[in-house]
Amino acid sequence: MNSSYRARLDQLTRERGNLCVGVDPHETLVGSWGFDYDVKGLERVSRGLIEAIGDRVAVFKPQAAFFECFGAAGVQVLARVLHDIKQAGALSILDVKRGDIGSTMTAYASAYLSGRTDLSADAITLSPFLGFGSLAPAVELAHQTGRGIYVLCRTSNPEGSEVQQAVYEGRTIAQQIVDAAHETNQRSGQDAIGLVIGGTLLQLNLDLQGFSGSILVPGIGAQGGTVEGLESLFGVATRQLLPSASREVMKAGPQPEALRLAIDRLSDCP
Amino acid sequence: MNSSYRARLDQLTRERGNLCVGVDPHETLVGSWGFDYDVKGLERVSRGLIEAIGDRVAVFKPQAAFFECFGAAGVQVLARVLHDIKQAGALSILDVKRGDIGSTMTAYASAYLSGRTDLSADAITLSPFLGFGSLAPAVELAHQTGRGIYVLCRTSNPEGSEVQQAVYEGRTIAQQIVDAAHETNQRSGQDAIGLVIGGTLLQLNLDLQGFSGSILVPGIGAQGGTVEGLESLFGVATRQLLPSASREVMKAGPQPEALRLAIDRLSDCP
Repeated sequence: MNSSYRARLDQLTRERGNLCVGVDPHETLVGSWGFDYDVKGLERVSRGLIEAIGDRVAVFKPQAAFFECFGAAGVQVLARVLHDIKQAGALSILDVKRGDIGSTMTAYASAYLSGRTDLSADAITLSPFLGFGSLAPAVELAHQTGRGIYVLCRTSNPEGSEVQQAVYEGRTIAQQIVDAAHETNQRSGQDAIGLVIGGTLLQLNLDLQGFSGSILVPGIGAQGGTVEGLESLFGVATRQLLPSASREVMKAGPQPEALRLAIDRLSDCP
Repeated sequence: MNSSYRARLDQLTRERGNLCVGVDPHETLVGSWGFDYDVKGLERVSRGLIEAIGDRVAVFKPQAAFFECFGAAGVQVLARVLHDIKQAGALSILDVKRGDIGSTMTAYASAYLSGRTDLSADAITLSPFLGFGSLAPAVELAHQTGRGIYVLCRTSNPEGSEVQQAVYEGRTIAQQIVDAAHETNQRSGQDAIGLVIGGTLLQLNLDLQGFSGSILVPGIGAQGGTVEGLESLFGVATRQLLPSASREVMKAGPQPEALRLAIDRLSDCP
């Protein structure tokens, strides 16, 4: 790859709009497309989605859990979906929320950010329960290979606050993550480190000033968030926001035209 | 399965001792066994380990990252390793550190705790960055299927404290996890919820009194923890502790006799 993740993201969202479409083929959705909920149905729905709208969407976010729940065969389907996304000229953010330490973290980085495996994506989500610093092997590899990372920061589920709003040395965990991501981006000059921040919160309780990385915002559409509400909630340049919708798009399938209409409806992005 | 995870664990550790052997086939180890670091080498080393000591060890802990780093083909090897562990009459704790919310968490639970996929294990590790409550779908399924969960609580890497020792409403995150796991175990009567607590910390800063679940303690051997030091560090009944060693065992391979001697050396458990 010739450019950094952030440069590719910026170019593609300028061309195609900044909606990220989640690939979350759960049981109800697979059923609503008229398929049995088995490995074949999983493959038909997730690859059918990319086939229908892959050339119109800048970023797809496959959710690993919905593939892993079919075991090793499901993970093979995930590899094919990642390939399809690439073929369609779109970017992939693989939502894996991995997080570990040392050589284990290095192995996760290698799995998803090296470009040498069939599970490599353009970016992945990571979970910082072992501390932001524990993610260093992934940060390093992302910088080397021109890929991106989205670190969980502030989620909109009610139980999330018990962890993310806890305070260590005068700062909340969520603010710590923002600050550490910001410092890393400043140092590297690549803006490879993004954040995951829920779009349905009433208040973020976060200082995002100066943060120049990408912010992935799940929960648009079916989960109640609106694209219009994001600008005032986040208070950052709207070009940094990557609102993500899944059910709202996928439930419109399987007809390609209906899927395209669904993304057009959601694509009036901030 | 006829009994709860905890009942099976107790019976098996009484018979075979309470050492948990980590299956961490990283590059150096695969090389030291005389194999190339590829999918075939991965399979030879990880399955060779189970073949050599599977009938003498109560619990194996395969680390998912070392399989995922070979892509979908690596995950297929992981499925075979889990099968081998079962055939050897041992238990598996699959170290995946997953954590998500809602239907995504349900999908992860289904992947690893349903018994219906080739990635199902006897227990898994989970990460509570989205709050202990977000893990509920996995807790529920573990109770239904007689499986176990180990929730990350206090890790020994230096950056871990920034999150785990942060305070929310008067309690550290780590203590919150202990208390929530304890309450869940009390309510269910199954003791299916265990904790992951590092074995190389000088001080835990945790109140484990009354906690009756299993405690997985990584870092024995190569990482500097000693089995002898655990009793005083944890201050709980030693039968609850499941010390885990990986490199210290695996580096003794590939000769079966040398692997057996390595576990005998480590098995003088508290």
